[in-house]
Amino acid sequence: MHSIAYLGPAGTFAEAAARQLPEVAGGADLRPVASVPAALEAVREGMTDGALVPLENSVEGSVNTTLDELATGEHLLIRREVITPVTFDFLALEGRHLGDVRTVATHPHAAAQCRRWLRSVELDTAVRLTSSTADAAASVAKGEFDAAIAAPLAADQYGLVAVARDIGDARHAVTRFVLIGRPTGPEERTGADRTSLVAYIAEDHSGALMEVLNEFAVRGVNLTRIESRPTGERLGRYCFFLDCEGHIADARVGEALSGLFRVCSEVRYLGSYPRADHVAPQQRPGTTDADFSAAADWLRGLRSDGR
Amino acid sequence: MHSIAYLGPAGTFAEAAARQLPEVAGGADLRPVASVPAALEAVREGMTDGALVPLENSVEGSVNTTLDELATGEHLLIRREVITPVTFDFLALEGRHLGDVRTVATHPHAAAQCRRWLRSVELDTAVRLTSSTADAAASVAKGEFDAAIAAPLAADQYGLVAVARDIGDARHAVTRFVLIGRPTGPEERTGADRTSLVAYIAEDHSGALMEVLNEFAVRGVNLTRIESRPTGERLGRYCFFLDCEGHIADARVGEALSGLFRVCSEVRYLGSYPRADHVAPQQRPGTTDADFSAAADWLRGLRSDGR
Amino acid sequence: MHSIAYLGPAGTFAEAAARQLPEVAGGADLRPVASVPAALEAVREGMTDGALVPLENSVEGSVNTTLDELATGEHLLIRREVITPVTFDFLALEGRHLGDVRTVATHPHAAAQCRRWLRSVELDTAVRLTSSTADAAASVAKGEFDAAIAAPLAADQYGLVAVARDIGDARHAVTRFVLIGRPTGPEERTGADRTSLVAYIAEDHSGALMEVLNEFAVRGVNLTRIESRPTGERLGRYCFFLDCEGHIADARVGEALSGLFRVCSEVRYLGSYPRADHVAPQQRPGTTDADFSAAADWLRGLRSDGR
Amino acid sequence: MHSIAYLGPAGTFAEAAARQLPEVAGGADLRPVASVPAALEAVREGMTDGALVPLENSVEGSVNTTLDELATGEHLLIRREVITPVTFDFLALEGRHLGDVRTVATHPHAAAQCRRWLRSVELDTAVRLTSSTADAAASVAKGEFDAAIAAPLAADQYGLVAVARDIGDARHAVTRFVLIGRPTGPEERTGADRTSLVAYIAEDHSGALMEVLNEFAVRGVNLTRIESRPTGERLGRYCFFLDCEGHIADARVGEALSGLFRVCSEVRYLGSYPRADHVAPQQRPGTTDADFSAAADWLRGLRSDGR
Repeated sequence: MHSIAYLGPAGTFAEAAARQLPEVAGGADLRPVASVPAALEAVREGMTDGALVPLENSVEGSVNTTLDELATGEHLLIRREVITPVTFDFLALEGRHLGDVRTVATHPHAAAQCRRWLRSVELDTAVRLTSSTADAAASVAKGEFDAAIAAPLAADQYGLVAVARDIGDARHAVTRFVLIGRPTGPEERTGADRTSLVAYIAEDHSGALMEVLNEFAVRGVNLTRIESRPTGERLGRYCFFLDCEGHIADARVGEALSGLFRVCSEVRYLGSYPRADHVAPQQRPGTTDADFSAAADWLRGLRSDGR
Repeated sequence: MHSIAYLGPAGTFAEAAARQLPEVAGGADLRPVASVPAALEAVREGMTDGALVPLENSVEGSVNTTLDELATGEHLLIRREVITPVTFDFLALEGRHLGDVRTVATHPHAAAQCRRWLRSVELDTAVRLTSSTADAAASVAKGEFDAAIAAPLAADQYGLVAVARDIGDARHAVTRFVLIGRPTGPEERTGADRTSLVAYIAEDHSGALMEVLNEFAVRGVNLTRIESRPTGERLGRYCFFLDCEGHIADARVGEALSGLFRVCSEVRYLGSYPRADHVAPQQRPGTTDADFSAAADWLRGLRSDGR
Repeated sequence: MHSIAYLGPAGTFAEAAARQLPEVAGGADLRPVASVPAALEAVREGMTDGALVPLENSVEGSVNTTLDELATGEHLLIRREVITPVTFDFLALEGRHLGDVRTVATHPHAAAQCRRWLRSVELDTAVRLTSSTADAAASVAKGEFDAAIAAPLAADQYGLVAVARDIGDARHAVTRFVLIGRPTGPEERTGADRTSLVAYIAEDHSGALMEVLNEFAVRGVNLTRIESRPTGERLGRYCFFLDCEGHIADARVGEALSGLFRVCSEVRYLGSYPRADHVAPQQRPGTTDADFSAAADWLRGLRSDGR
Repeated sequence: MHSIAYLGPAGTFAEAAARQLPEVAGGADLRPVASVPAALEAVREGMTDGALVPLENSVEGSVNTTLDELATGEHLLIRREVITPVTFDFLALEGRHLGDVRTVATHPHAAAQCRRWLRSVELDTAVRLTSSTADAAASVAKGEFDAAIAAPLAADQYGLVAVARDIGDARHAVTRFVLIGRPTGPEERTGADRTSLVAYIAEDHSGALMEVLNEFAVRGVNLTRIESRPTGERLGRYCFFLDCEGHIADARVGEALSGLFRVCSEVRYLGSYPRADHVAPQQRPGTTDADFSAAADWLRGLRSDGR
């Protein structure tokens, strides 16, 4: 990839994550864009080769915009994942004290992740929302608000100081970013891969989700994430974002996906890519590629000459 | 209930929903509060008898703050649900045209639900976030922003006019509000009830979710909603918000909940209450209260004298 | 097939069943043999092209000798099934009355199927076992025993008369015979086929049978019969004789069998053949050959160019 | 129990098994009876307190007569199980050699279990069936047949010698006998118990057996045996004889049985009794009596005051 868009402005967690990409180390340009939809549109239209966008956070859960943008429109694929720690600092102009603060600017997700701390300092009703934590810092620098909740690296960037550090409610919070690209030829298999997809349940019957899960279970494919999202049609209609262990080139993953394709009204493949944690799957006996291959040979024999 | 808090300010969808409550028709006072946490805290501390808060939207999905507040802290119960249509108007001061608009104020959820329309009029990067759609309308009235995306009823309230109407991306969008109260004695059973709970998976093994779903399936209890939320500990650890058909007083629901209690690390009961759509459950043969009672009699006979 | 062995002697139900075979109508010779093992050995050694042997009876259940002979030794295949009604007559020499009878000869299965009647006439302890119902009739003709329980057609053959007719405990009893042959090239698919096999559970864990059944269920393949048999190693170790709807050439049956092959310690295929009742399978949506083929195309696309 | 009937005549494996019963050691009389139905009828009519009958054999499988007699008629219960090794000797009059033998008397089950040996000495077509192995030995003593396959203890009893010893095809073959009694008050729980029952599937749908197995699996109750038997109505209609770990007084077993009662057309309880092998069940977390009791307390709280 020659150019990669990320959710800007500069100074957000997204930039920190983007700097970890081997593609960037390899010389790809980084460009900030204003929103997730804008980032993905830039990929779809060929303005950029990739886009790094947040997919989920260990505290706040999924980033709905990203999910919804991946689930609709022209197909895009996840090519890589990056998991970065998220810590929030409480930033203000030099000399400002906590007791002076009347307004606190931040992004809604950051506000949500610092809810308990904000309540403890009686600032929960002082929050003013901005479209990014970097914007919040910028607006404090401009004097529009008294303080910002933002990434530590925003302090330097906007000439602020940390009045309080690491104020997030959860220790060890992380955000999982994904690098999105256009569909492409056979993807590299590392042996410690993840596969993502969206499944739309065919019929509105109870038990349909169990059937979907069973397509994975029966082939020994572990799920690492399940996330329901409304389809927008009406309450009670969901699609499911699923991450599973393994690569689409794996026999068991391929057969599970084919099974899904047959029982679901729609399946959208979102890519196979290396796991950021390099954890290789625990494979149940009978589910390796060699096992599938032996079974196929056996079946071929039975079909051709009865043994 | 004598007093009911709702997510204010006045002029939001929440107020419209609250006005549909029989408790309000029966004389309960309505009071706006600044946030969902504040509303639930008011109930917990006995400052109000109930709080009407949004739980999920047919387009945007769950309201995470509500889920997280119900899942932690002192136990509260859902006592009632209200489902209201959601339509968005594009409001501005009299005389303003679409072409003049540089900034659009609105709540993040409203922005998300009007994403496509905003892009079509090239205003997707003009959005400024406010903490409610009513706040957005108010800030336009004060001249802080050019236009607001808000509920139709906010126009009158803040002296604005609709430049465009019903601009939401999804037709027939609805929001499901729930009336929250403190735990209380046996709840009324109407025959068309819903039961809500949060289940924490005991072990981090693949298939754990299937086990949870199976506890319902084996007793013929249909699920109407499943929503995963991170527990905040780390990526890949979820709890599940589940809604099922039926009432905790139903034998099949009680046995399913007991089964959950045994296989989960924690189950938090969130209440049984009448369904807003009055749909009675379709019951599989062998799962009525009479069936459970006959089985219990049979078992008692076997245990006491072997037949 | 030019020659077909059947479980003799002449005058048994097996001969009646054999006469229904299209192969016999087409000119194949019929030869009685002394036992099921002898019949199957004759096929294995090429002394005969086929053998018609009983597999199960609607009252007595499976014929263990047949199951055990099919499950071990050189592979043989079921080529056809024949279902024939079974009625028993109580035969004696002319002039003999029920009150005179002190000994009743018959085959153990026939004795079992007439248990209730025998008790009602107080002859349950008078039974003497013979190796076939025809032998029983022959021995009565020779004066060795007073009466025989045998097929109606044995009366003429051995010069006996029916003292009582249709004395079986169950109305409408039938026996299912199967025509066994050596393994052979691709088998004809009629659209109303059955497939038989023996599955040996890999691990001795509870739930292993559910896993086996699930391999069929997940591909929408209905089972028409399940029969456990001890493996002979020790109590609690079973293999399972399974009949399912469909033909090994069907995509869903092939994938189910491959799945079994992977999870079982051994699977022995026993053939695909036309159902005697000509009932075509009810196929769940998503499980036709066309559905499997569409899923395979989709997967191929994803694997080669990501969409 | 004061008197116990067993499947005679004296000198069979059944007598050997009966002598192991603590009831016999405690002074109960043993009486041989002619058949399993006669033995169970004697219990039903109060002529004897108990009957020891064979239930299954590690080689030949279930004893169908016993299953069918337990499944119909007035209810009886299994009170105890005894597992005894089964070895067969080839008995003849003193001075007789294998080469001289033209006829071999034995019971059909014994013939089946010595099939391979009989073929190896070319005596497979020499078999003549008798109603017990003791009868076979007696008939050889009387000179009616040349040799008998029988229990070793029959040699002394009938004045025969062993021409060949331990000729059964399977090493370590065992037969499981059960002591049957009339239904009675609460049964002793030892902590290493087994529970037996017959389940009739309600609907003839594929997957019905999986539902039945699931009622056990979901409550963590392991099955130790599953045996299908035709109901006698028509091919393809089965009932299932199931043995599970645990005692009917166990909470998980009781709930599983109640579940079966609700989904099956009929369930016949056949008793809870100590396992002959004294193996205690491996219990999954969440399935002990204490777990069930804690869940019941929790549910009671929710139902009465909402928490």
